[in-house]
Amino acid sequence: MTSLPPSNASRTPNNPSVYALDRQYVFHSWSVQRTLDPLVIAGGAGCELWDYDGRRYLDFSSQLVNTNIGHQHPKVVAAIQAQAAQLTTIAPSTANWQRGEAARRIIDWSPEGFAKVFFTNAGADAVENAIRMARLYTGRDKVLSAYRSYHGNTGAAIVATGDPRRLPNEYARGHVHFFNPYLYRSEFHAQTPEEECERALHHLRRIITLEGPGQIAALLLETVPGTAGILVPPPGYLQGVRALADEFGIVLILDEVMCGFGRTGQRLALDHYGVTPDLITFAKGVNSGYVPAGGVVISQPIANYFEDRYFPGGLTYSGHPLAMAAIVATLDAMTEENMVENAARIGAEVLGPGLAALAEQHACVGEVRGLGLFWAIELVNEREHKTPLTAAAMQRIKNALLQRGLLPFIADNRIHVAPPLVVTAAQVQQALATYDEVLTETAQS
Amino acid sequence: MTSLPPSNASRTPNNPSVYALDRQYVFHSWSVQRTLDPLVIAGGAGCELWDYDGRRYLDFSSQLVNTNIGHQHPKVVAAIQAQAAQLTTIAPSTANWQRGEAARRIIDWSPEGFAKVFFTNAGADAVENAIRMARLYTGRDKVLSAYRSYHGNTGAAIVATGDPRRLPNEYARGHVHFFNPYLYRSEFHAQTPEEECERALHHLRRIITLEGPGQIAALLLETVPGTAGILVPPPGYLQGVRALADEFGIVLILDEVMCGFGRTGQRLALDHYGVTPDLITFAKGVNSGYVPAGGVVISQPIANYFEDRYFPGGLTYSGHPLAMAAIVATLDAMTEENMVENAARIGAEVLGPGLAALAEQHACVGEVRGLGLFWAIELVNEREHKTPLTAAAMQRIKNALLQRGLLPFIADNRIHVAPPLVVTAAQVQQALATYDEVLTETAQS
Ligand SMILES: Cc1ncc(COP(=O)(O)O)c(C=O)c1O
Ligand SMILES: Cc1ncc(COP(=O)(O)O)c(C=O)c1O
Repeated sequence: MTSLPPSNASRTPNNPSVYALDRQYVFHSWSVQRTLDPLVIAGGAGCELWDYDGRRYLDFSSQLVNTNIGHQHPKVVAAIQAQAAQLTTIAPSTANWQRGEAARRIIDWSPEGFAKVFFTNAGADAVENAIRMARLYTGRDKVLSAYRSYHGNTGAAIVATGDPRRLPNEYARGHVHFFNPYLYRSEFHAQTPEEECERALHHLRRIITLEGPGQIAALLLETVPGTAGILVPPPGYLQGVRALADEFGIVLILDEVMCGFGRTGQRLALDHYGVTPDLITFAKGVNSGYVPAGGVVISQPIANYFEDRYFPGGLTYSGHPLAMAAIVATLDAMTEENMVENAARIGAEVLGPGLAALAEQHACVGEVRGLGLFWAIELVNEREHKTPLTAAAMQRIKNALLQRGLLPFIADNRIHVAPPLVVTAAQVQQALATYDEVLTETAQS
Repeated sequence: MTSLPPSNASRTPNNPSVYALDRQYVFHSWSVQRTLDPLVIAGGAGCELWDYDGRRYLDFSSQLVNTNIGHQHPKVVAAIQAQAAQLTTIAPSTANWQRGEAARRIIDWSPEGFAKVFFTNAGADAVENAIRMARLYTGRDKVLSAYRSYHGNTGAAIVATGDPRRLPNEYARGHVHFFNPYLYRSEFHAQTPEEECERALHHLRRIITLEGPGQIAALLLETVPGTAGILVPPPGYLQGVRALADEFGIVLILDEVMCGFGRTGQRLALDHYGVTPDLITFAKGVNSGYVPAGGVVISQPIANYFEDRYFPGGLTYSGHPLAMAAIVATLDAMTEENMVENAARIGAEVLGPGLAALAEQHACVGEVRGLGLFWAIELVNEREHKTPLTAAAMQRIKNALLQRGLLPFIADNRIHVAPPLVVTAAQVQQALATYDEVLTETAQS
């Protein structure tokens, strides 16, 4: 036990002191601790962040693709402050005003046929609870999910995940993985979106048949797989998955944790496809992560099932008032300020065409793909063999972007382009110019 | 999609409207939805809560035993508001001032030998990550935990849990359960604390031997099992568990989610026993749940292990700035206002003796037990056979307490007594008088 000053209110933080404090005491996610070199961030507004020296960054990551309304939206900040003054926390077993209002809005943002919302703290526990509901509702065990997916890091969520980060964590049973569509690196030797769609559905039907339809509780998919590479599904795929779920009495769970709440230029990504799942998982964009929150939107038949049956799941902070107030304010601000429409428009008119132009100009761009403000630039050594750029090359790109004041989201050999939904055309142009410079530099080295 | 007003700011909530909104849209934890009758809560301060009609409740539950500093502590509310104005959210990969300060304080609250803190959103994911670290550090699979325990509700945490709520959720592998000490209902036919301790340790050694010490990654225990009944371990038990862990190279995880941060009248419950685990899980009291947060305190050897090895775990909101600011302010307020000392004093001088007196007076009290402000009143039909009071009788007791304005924590056949640590002697006397009245009524019916 060291002897600490009772309060830090009087001390003024700066870049080196905050950095040193972090490196001494904070254990980081997904890393080798010794190799860390964390960026110090002091504050932000809209699409910008800054450190204690006033160095500014244009945030084209939305952090972990969660700050859909941008940083420090005044209405949401005010709502959090007001709720903090009223009632910061209360047990989930009570009735709470903001919780009811948040649930009502989420039902409103969902397609027809959804009845209730179960709140969690984040995406992983949303997925855990959706899986739990599907298993109880069907009386079956297995969960089928995609190899190219990320669903979170708790017991079941990480094993549902297809990403190799699953491998050191395989302690849950009942999970089976299948290949989802990804035409650029087709597992099905397909040449066209139609072929990719048809073959991916055929493959999924084969897996369902061979795993035993009577044992499959859930099909779990990200509507648009995010971390795995913004893999926009080909037309017809999700409708086909819905039909398979119906045919075999399987619960369809669409994970909208990353792609939901305006990210793709629709309220939910599933609105692009006219597909209604049985359960929807959400987190991130629902309140931009201003306060940790997630949850499951439950369709009427599953809600009915649990009217008279015990639900064996719960958590201390389910429907946390501060998180709920942030949801209410976020969804209202998104509506009032037409953020979903902005995402659609900027995506279609500025970002999409701009990225297509980059792909034209740079041989190292294998593919660009996306929807709304949710895009990936996939980088390769040369186009023919599609060999991914190395981790070292990607690290150089990341550093070069940061040096130019652009905060990027790098995953494997891809730059994910996911600014807040309040991004302007000018900011997108600025980012495009930065990507262009850095890709030119990459080609030269 | 219904048509919602864009903002609820202008509408005034009241008890019936908040209740109706909840019942229509909110799916509750751990229940049969149709049978719910949630209490409406509008606000609170210290040990009190109230509804929209001004009806007041004395909170002797601290909600889910989390609001250790009481409701709406002004310094913590102010810290949340200030942080909300500065930077509500930022990715875990950055360096953040409040995160560093929170980690520094938690290391200070922990015994010697702890180096770093990994932050999560709550208790369940703290337990998940402690289990992950233990498995990676030891290269072993199995996790041994107690039948009388609760560790949270995600994949691994709920299967580590011993409580029957585990049973519909058994989808994780590698979990084995053992009997922990509980002299009042001894599994070991013991008559004295010494016997219970010795036999419980013998039993644990037998389980370790038969499960294969070389396959056991972790021993996971609540320092004082909470939800399972405030099962204060007999003297020597935790030292004996530590010795077994050392003998077999097993990681000892103490779960301080409920019993930590002043609840038992020490900073951590483990301070009563002078036992140093390898990992400590925390949540709840660390910031009174004002903003969802939890985490793992990591001892130096395990922190060293991960200096050069990849840690395959993480979450979007790890070290969330708002939650971190609440931790800093909570721990500082607890220190400045001597809350831990208050818990110890009120527990020893008022609550403990008062509960002992109740046990004298009421034949239906089988046992009272506890430490600090963490007590259970175990209710039985008659003392000789220790038959637990029925669920229906417990429901009547709950209603009778609520009618008298006391918000209780009821678990099985027990009343858990866990007021905020700022409780006064007068408030404890008031609660004791209420318990007394209701127990008298119970005896009459
Ligand atoms: C699609 C999807 N599901 C679930 C999660 C897990 O969310 P969290 O990190 O909040 O647990 C993520 C996180 O990136 C995600 O992208
Ligand atoms: C000892 C213990 N561990 C873990 C948990 C799980 O915490 P949470 O509900 O925040 O996930 C609890 C919750 O009551 C607990 O008491």
